[in-house]
Amino acid sequence: MSERIILGIDPGTLFLGYGIIKIQNSKIELVCLGEVRLNKLETHQLKLKKIFERISQLIDEYKPDECAVECPFYGENIQSMLKLGRAQGVAMVACLSKELPVEEYYPKKVKQSITGNGNASKEQVAQMLLKLCNMKTLPKSLDATDALAVAVCHYFQGSGSIEKGTKKYSGWGAFVNENKDKIK
Amino acid sequence: MSERIILGIDPGTLFLGYGIIKIQNSKIELVCLGEVRLNKLETHQLKLKKIFERISQLIDEYKPDECAVECPFYGENIQSMLKLGRAQGVAMVACLSKELPVEEYYPKKVKQSITGNGNASKEQVAQMLLKLCNMKTLPKSLDATDALAVAVCHYFQGSGSIEKGTKKYSGWGAFVNENKDKIK
Repeated sequence: MSERIILGIDPGTLFLGYGIIKIQNSKIELVCLGEVRLNKLETHQLKLKKIFERISQLIDEYKPDECAVECPFYGENIQSMLKLGRAQGVAMVACLSKELPVEEYYPKKVKQSITGNGNASKEQVAQMLLKLCNMKTLPKSLDATDALAVAVCHYFQGSGSIEKGTKKYSGWGAFVNENKDKIK
Repeated sequence: MSERIILGIDPGTLFLGYGIIKIQNSKIELVCLGEVRLNKLETHQLKLKKIFERISQLIDEYKPDECAVECPFYGENIQSMLKLGRAQGVAMVACLSKELPVEEYYPKKVKQSITGNGNASKEQVAQMLLKLCNMKTLPKSLDATDALAVAVCHYFQGSGSIEKGTKKYSGWGAFVNENKDKIK
């Protein structure tokens, strides 16, 4: 039976949200979600290390087939973008170093995909997630909700899929297979 | 006999420069330097993965005690800073995930440290490096030269040192030792 596990990540410099879903028979099942608090770690380096370690642990534990990362492309200023970029890069490479395909989604794309409206409120997105994932209550953490949203968005987009048993590869895996001479 | 090996890194989105020096009896010895070409890799993700893999390889091969990373804090625009931040974050976490202390230096600080002048030209920095590292010719790659410069700068700053045999820790190692309760 075909089954896909998707890890959604919302990487920030204060909190890291994650949400894992399993797709079976076109049905979304919530596996787990949560947030990692980075705000109490004293240095930026400790935050980066924590992001890498936590995502590596999640991958080892839940063995996702694909990863989806929410990546804003704007920020208050250049300094904040540099730090956000570091957090994004570390989250992505934690997946890539384990040979998982990674897809990036802008926040607007995620909202559009979940609710049909790129300008939907966080509450509207949350309400749709409740129905889609068959949950009774949403977590208090907005970062965890955002991470779950990007995982569901990825499923709806149907990109980067590695379907177990069907050997249908795209994303990073496909690129490696098709471009062996370019990767050294 | 006390010996320190320092890995200097200049992470960019087109090229990754690296330079490794060994300090023995207060003398700088060049171990190796080079650049990794990222410009021909087709996606940003492939670049990030390459940065992580190459730095991990360098650490496994040369077993540095400390890492120094050149980190500009400005850029043309927010998009370029986001991408540069990703490259920096990945380079740093490649070191941090192997429990190596990492120190960041602004380009101006590196120039100041090597030549005494924060506004020195690349040629002036290169000439000083020739003398300091007892080299006959400099590599053609400016990124490799920059990476060597940040390694030498780190030695001059005397920070983040883990001296083999003397068990004198600072930087990341010291933070871990002193803050075990904060690291989970």
